[in-house]
Amino acid sequence: MLDLDKPQIISLFEFNAAVQCILEAYIASVQGNVQTGEVVHLAFPDENGDCHVKSGYITGTASYVIKIASGFYDNPAKGLPSSNGMMLAFSATTGETLAILRDEGWLTDMRTAIGGALATRALSRANATEVLIIGAGIQAQLQAICLAQLMPDRSFNFNIWARNASAAQVLKTDLNAKGHNAITVSDLDLAISQADIIITTTNSTKPLFADGLVRKGCHVTAIGADCPGKQELPTKLVTTASLLVCDMASQSLNHGEFQNACRSHASLKVTELGHILSGEKIGRMSDQDITIVDLTGIAAQDIAITQAIIDAADCEKT
Amino acid sequence: MLDLDKPQIISLFEFNAAVQCILEAYIASVQGNVQTGEVVHLAFPDENGDCHVKSGYITGTASYVIKIASGFYDNPAKGLPSSNGMMLAFSATTGETLAILRDEGWLTDMRTAIGGALATRALSRANATEVLIIGAGIQAQLQAICLAQLMPDRSFNFNIWARNASAAQVLKTDLNAKGHNAITVSDLDLAISQADIIITTTNSTKPLFADGLVRKGCHVTAIGADCPGKQELPTKLVTTASLLVCDMASQSLNHGEFQNACRSHASLKVTELGHILSGEKIGRMSDQDITIVDLTGIAAQDIAITQAIIDAADCEKT
Repeated sequence: MLDLDKPQIISLFEFNAAVQCILEAYIASVQGNVQTGEVVHLAFPDENGDCHVKSGYITGTASYVIKIASGFYDNPAKGLPSSNGMMLAFSATTGETLAILRDEGWLTDMRTAIGGALATRALSRANATEVLIIGAGIQAQLQAICLAQLMPDRSFNFNIWARNASAAQVLKTDLNAKGHNAITVSDLDLAISQADIIITTTNSTKPLFADGLVRKGCHVTAIGADCPGKQELPTKLVTTASLLVCDMASQSLNHGEFQNACRSHASLKVTELGHILSGEKIGRMSDQDITIVDLTGIAAQDIAITQAIIDAADCEKT
Repeated sequence: MLDLDKPQIISLFEFNAAVQCILEAYIASVQGNVQTGEVVHLAFPDENGDCHVKSGYITGTASYVIKIASGFYDNPAKGLPSSNGMMLAFSATTGETLAILRDEGWLTDMRTAIGGALATRALSRANATEVLIIGAGIQAQLQAICLAQLMPDRSFNFNIWARNASAAQVLKTDLNAKGHNAITVSDLDLAISQADIIITTTNSTKPLFADGLVRKGCHVTAIGADCPGKQELPTKLVTTASLLVCDMASQSLNHGEFQNACRSHASLKVTELGHILSGEKIGRMSDQDITIVDLTGIAAQDIAITQAIIDAADCEKT
């Protein structure tokens, strides 16, 4: 049995292999080849914490995966990280435990960022370079890094806006140090109107900007909304966009970015990302389209990134 | 972090402490002090296997528990045990992993048997000694052992009947070797009619015996039915019993032993075990009552037995 802690997982992690696994997982998901367990949610309101369990199995693969992820948001004041958790893999033939990956949420962060980068690559204009990142947390950082790593031939300019200006400054410095073009911006509306790509990574419960600012041809990747009540984009932007894409319609329309638009527009049409990644459905039709992807995160991503680590560990052994 | 394998868990296990924790957990459950996560079920029909995840938190305790339990029923032919799994405990204050108990299903077996023994003690007649065990699997064995250990002053005679007569013989020999009075019986109907206590531990999907055989004063503990379609007792025995008790009504009426009686008798009255263990509700009213307990297993038991092991490990350290 493989038992790895976070540093061991990070050292085994290979970006391109993980990207390939996650891309295939999105496609398996829309092809009906992923069995997903009920999402478990335990709440600890007195401690400002919660825990989620996601689980699933991709047909024909060697293992099923159970992910346990917690967030206790007062932890930083105690000198502890907010996120905790692990990925567990079990043999789909015998039930034996194959791997305990004590990633403390790192694999979830990475699979989320890779999912966003895959969606942004699939749907943004071919000449898109001006990227507006809203937020300055771990997803803001990783979405920028993974997008740049996924598309090394494109020279992105990362424009960072966050309610917490000093956090935006820290992220800018960090991205610069990693060799990326990054600046902070103070006028969010102006930045919205000039962006080719907008990536929202906040836990906002109301639109971050007004409708009518996003220019034609822009692509938006919305990462933040993952439970009822969260919203980052103006509802009208969603209902008037050229194309709405999500990872899983049942999640997105229920508790993702599209929940509000869905309530007011019962016939909201959304396409699942796997259909676009497989080439089965067309994404962007023209350089004038406004496209939006909402990612709530699916168990298939967890299975895929766990399998990528197990594969890497197996390779290292042989 | 505590990381224990099955032999370490068994060596730390202390029966009376576990009994006390589980008894308190049943009471906490009916008092609304247990938060229970959705039950996750993954199925692997091609491999004759499945996996369940149960989770929960008892208000005011130090940790929440997630249990992963699988059964791959073709494993024995491969020289592997059918059951696999682990109990995971996390801090309810910070989400940090406190314990990984790689019990391979042993703690589930024990908490199930202790639950049965607590129910049998609470509801059987004071002079009940003739125990009929139906089935010869691990629960048949453990229900007998735990009942005897819970009530050391009572001299039980264990009568064992199983469809597989040689398995019944093996269990008899095993119980004898452990110092218990045990015999096998071949006439199930006769044994039913003479029993003070009947404990059913099979995975039957139809009644194991006909109605009208159970004598007055008998107590029945039904362990086997834990999913839709399973049934061990004649429906009429259930609908005419003096008292129906279960661990959790929502489970028992939906997928436990009482599912069939519930469908034909919409107003079926069931009492939850915690109310009887706390003394809040009366159990058996007379030596003529026929009482039935159906146990489907609740997350509170998993939390309790996990906490008992953590406590024992903490004690050993200090």
